[in-house]
Amino acid sequence: MSLKLEDKKKLTSEWFQDLQNQMINSFESLDTKKFEKKSWERPGGGGGTMAVMKGDVFEKVGVNISVVHGKFTNEFKKKIPGTESSADFWAAGISVVAHMKNPKIAAAHFNTRFIATEKSWFGGGCDLTPAIPEDEETQSFHSGLEKTCNSSSYDYQKWKKECDEYFYLKHRKEPRGVGGIFFDYLNEDKFDNEFDFIKNLGLYFKNFVHDNVERKKDSPYSEEDMSKLMHKRSRYVEFNLLYDRGTLFGLKTDGNVDAILMSMPPRAEWN
Amino acid sequence: MSLKLEDKKKLTSEWFQDLQNQMINSFESLDTKKFEKKSWERPGGGGGTMAVMKGDVFEKVGVNISVVHGKFTNEFKKKIPGTESSADFWAAGISVVAHMKNPKIAAAHFNTRFIATEKSWFGGGCDLTPAIPEDEETQSFHSGLEKTCNSSSYDYQKWKKECDEYFYLKHRKEPRGVGGIFFDYLNEDKFDNEFDFIKNLGLYFKNFVHDNVERKKDSPYSEEDMSKLMHKRSRYVEFNLLYDRGTLFGLKTDGNVDAILMSMPPRAEWN
Repeated sequence: MSLKLEDKKKLTSEWFQDLQNQMINSFESLDTKKFEKKSWERPGGGGGTMAVMKGDVFEKVGVNISVVHGKFTNEFKKKIPGTESSADFWAAGISVVAHMKNPKIAAAHFNTRFIATEKSWFGGGCDLTPAIPEDEETQSFHSGLEKTCNSSSYDYQKWKKECDEYFYLKHRKEPRGVGGIFFDYLNEDKFDNEFDFIKNLGLYFKNFVHDNVERKKDSPYSEEDMSKLMHKRSRYVEFNLLYDRGTLFGLKTDGNVDAILMSMPPRAEWN
Repeated sequence: MSLKLEDKKKLTSEWFQDLQNQMINSFESLDTKKFEKKSWERPGGGGGTMAVMKGDVFEKVGVNISVVHGKFTNEFKKKIPGTESSADFWAAGISVVAHMKNPKIAAAHFNTRFIATEKSWFGGGCDLTPAIPEDEETQSFHSGLEKTCNSSSYDYQKWKKECDEYFYLKHRKEPRGVGGIFFDYLNEDKFDNEFDFIKNLGLYFKNFVHDNVERKKDSPYSEEDMSKLMHKRSRYVEFNLLYDRGTLFGLKTDGNVDAILMSMPPRAEWN
């Protein structure tokens, strides 16, 4: 069965929408507040929906989806596959960042996307940034990712290494968090297998965050723990504004600032 | 009277040291806390002294001086005058950032530097970032800068414009603050006049901050005012990590991270 590109676009953008709804329901079930949704249009074509909850458990969690299209500028064309004879692109994706109120629970980040030029591919990843790393949290996150990769025959160790290399603050010579997986240009001419993996990864992340938050949301913490959280968040800010490709790409290409900087923590301290 | 380069290096580095002491005394006189000093060495040559006070009036104020020397990398050589036949550089400077506890008082930034390659020049500037702009503060700051420029026959309007252009958050289409002056490559073969101006600007900034803080430090403020301060500080962080040349240059060239990021506000909120 060979799907046309238009079918792939429809399937992936519907999935990102479905996953946004599932995540909203899952995270709201743990909190006393609700998500607020806000749609935006991209001047060049397409748009998205930001969903943000500022809650009592999730201090700030954003679940953004977007489906956009247009033409790459010459500067970016060079860096993107499949743009030799046309600068046209189409992209759909979901991006999630959760900053927790309790400093004992790791901040969690996830995104997956499907991009089409004259080629098409998936990219994405997810990772944890704990202020106070806990073995159970870190190990269960990694082992779940390993299983998710293995069940679709993808190389977990390779993507784990890429994640560690990516989420690294060079100027401080320190990792942002405890990693996860990171992959790009996933296209092995097995769309069904790839898309299954993308879906499984989204569901895995949603369930991991749900169960991890449920387990730890009432953990007692001290002022010192909170101070560690505020410190770690300053590193999160530094990483995103100095290194994160998506953030810098978005800001340079007149992307939706609120949607791009949804990733910023609600509060941070340089202490 | 024609000074040798070595004399200029001695005079300027002594001045930056003197000004650091004057500022420390001036700012401590308004607060209940004291500055803590920390010296650092630059692996490539030279070093500096950071002085930071986390006070009750100045929530965080840093007054850093440095005298460094070494060789520019090829990447940076191209952008710097006087490096055609040698990559050697020498640089001394002072950098001040003051984040106030009271949201009614503008954050204040100042720096001046003397740089020598096969050419030599001064650069620097100062500007204010109020969360809640106040006419008296803004106007007295600008009019004092105008007088300081005029008394050394420099073009205040030109440097004011350069400051406004520099301290601008392109992605948000908003200025960082209310501006000030910004200048670089100041070398008109009148070292005495230039150096007099550099000294006058430093003294002007020190006195302005002292008098402005003294006038406003007991101003009443509301929770909403504090929320505006936390919001404005997030823009300060965004500017410094996304656009500030000194910050990005320093971080890319393995500069002293603590000294470079001394400019970060103690707390910020993306609200």
